[in-house]
Amino acid sequence: MIIIGEKINGAIPSAAKAIAARDEAYIRETARKQAEFGADYLDVCAGGAPEGERETLAWLIGVVQDEVDVPLCIDSADCGLILDMLPLVKRPGLINSVSEERGKCDLLLPHIADSEWKVVALTCDNGGISNDPQVKFGIAVTMVEKAKALGIAEDRIFIDPLATALSANGSALAGFTETMGLIRSRYQGVHFTSGLSNISFGMPFRKAINQQFLCLAMAAGMDSAIMDPTSADMRATLYAAEAILGKDRLCRRYLTAYRKGVIGAC
Amino acid sequence: MIIIGEKINGAIPSAAKAIAARDEAYIRETARKQAEFGADYLDVCAGGAPEGERETLAWLIGVVQDEVDVPLCIDSADCGLILDMLPLVKRPGLINSVSEERGKCDLLLPHIADSEWKVVALTCDNGGISNDPQVKFGIAVTMVEKAKALGIAEDRIFIDPLATALSANGSALAGFTETMGLIRSRYQGVHFTSGLSNISFGMPFRKAINQQFLCLAMAAGMDSAIMDPTSADMRATLYAAEAILGKDRLCRRYLTAYRKGVIGAC
Repeated sequence: MIIIGEKINGAIPSAAKAIAARDEAYIRETARKQAEFGADYLDVCAGGAPEGERETLAWLIGVVQDEVDVPLCIDSADCGLILDMLPLVKRPGLINSVSEERGKCDLLLPHIADSEWKVVALTCDNGGISNDPQVKFGIAVTMVEKAKALGIAEDRIFIDPLATALSANGSALAGFTETMGLIRSRYQGVHFTSGLSNISFGMPFRKAINQQFLCLAMAAGMDSAIMDPTSADMRATLYAAEAILGKDRLCRRYLTAYRKGVIGAC
Repeated sequence: MIIIGEKINGAIPSAAKAIAARDEAYIRETARKQAEFGADYLDVCAGGAPEGERETLAWLIGVVQDEVDVPLCIDSADCGLILDMLPLVKRPGLINSVSEERGKCDLLLPHIADSEWKVVALTCDNGGISNDPQVKFGIAVTMVEKAKALGIAEDRIFIDPLATALSANGSALAGFTETMGLIRSRYQGVHFTSGLSNISFGMPFRKAINQQFLCLAMAAGMDSAIMDPTSADMRATLYAAEAILGKDRLCRRYLTAYRKGVIGAC
C-alpha cells in the first residue's frame, strides 16, 4: 500500500487553525509524525479562500520539505497554481489532482510529461461525479490515453474512482469496486487511490465504515490510500488487511509493524 | 448475520474457571450479555475432561435456558452426547457440530431429520482439514446430500469452511472464500458460519486479523459467525460491514445499533 498522509490540509479544522496562525511547529510535527508512521507521500493542501492559497501552499511546501524527506503530494483544485508550485519542490512527488473537469488534464499533463511527477486522476468531468461505473471507466480511459500519448507511463497515474456516500447510495462500495475492475481489466499498470472517509459522509461512527472501506477496497485492488497514518485504528486495518489478503509475504510487514509498536497498542 | 455467541465454552479460561466452580451467576451473566448484544444462538460447550462433560453440559444447558430465551447451540465433539442432551433443551436450536469425521453425520443427522434442529457441518473428514477448496467442497457435498436425503432442508445446515491459520498458510482467506464459492454455486440455501479467530492463530494482535476476516468473509457470502458479541470492536466491524456491503437496507440496523449504543462507544 502506498500511503498518502492527509493531515496537512486546510479543510481540517485543526490544520486550518495552524495554517492561519502560521504555526510552523504544528506543521512540522504533523509532517514528522505521518512520516514516522509510514506515509509514502505527504499531502499539502492550503484550503481556505482562493486569494491566499498561493502564498499558503508555498509556505507549507517550504516547511514540510524542510522537516522531512518524504515526497510531497501537491493538492489544489487549481492546476495552474499547482504548476507554479512545482519549481519550489525539491523532488518530484504526486500531484492531487487532475480530472476531466474544466480541461485539467489537458492543462497539466503536458507540463509533467517529461518529469518524474506522478498524478492523481479523479474519475469525474464537467458532469460531476457519476454513480455509473461505466461512465467513470470512460473518463478514466480518456485520462489514461491522454497521459500515455504524452509518454506518461501507467504507473505514474493514481486513479481515484471517487467513492460516493453510502448514506445516499447503498451500492457506493459496489460502484467503487466495479469501477476499479473495469479500469484494471484495461490497464494493468495504474495505481488506485482514494480518500477513506467520503463513503461514510452523513453516517455516525464514521471510523467503523471507513475501516471496512479500506479493507474491502484493498481486497478489490486499491493499492494506495489518502489517509491518516497517525490513526492506530487505520494502521491496524491496513496492516492486517495486507496480511490476510496475501499482499504481505509471510506477514513480514505485519509482524515488523507489531514489533515496532506501529500496530497493536490499541 | 446470524450470530452464535461463543463465550460459554470451557476452552476459554475464564469460562472454564466458572464451570469448575459451578459459578451459576457467571454463566447467567455471560448468557444475558451475549443475548443483549444480539446473539441469535448461545453456544454451550463444556470443554475439560471427557468424563465430566455430560454432567457439565447438562448443567450449562439448564442454567442458560433458565436465564434467557435465546436458542442454544449444543457444542461437543461427541455426537452421541449431543443426542442425549437434546431432550433437556426447551426448543430446537443448533448442533455444533457434525463432519465427515468418524461417521458423525451418519450418527446424528437421522436423529434430527424430523425435528427443527439445525446443524453446523464442518468440512473435514478422517483425513483432517484439507487446504484444498475442492476437497472441502467434496466433503460439503457429501454432507449436504446426506442431509437432503433425510429431508433436512439446506437452510438447516450451517457449513463451516474451516479457516486455517494465516501464519501457516498465506492463502488461508483465499482458500476459505473459494470453498464458500464452490459450495454456494451448488447449494443456494445453506448458511456459512465460522469461528473468527482460527485464522489469526500464531499471530500477534489477533483482533485486527479477526476483524478483517469477519469483514472479508462477509463480503464473500458468510452469513453467520461464531463470535463474541460482547466485543465492541467486533460489533463495530459486523454492523459497518453489513452496511457497506449493502446487506443492511438504508443502513437501518447500523443506525439503530448506533442510536442504542450497541456500536460507537469505542
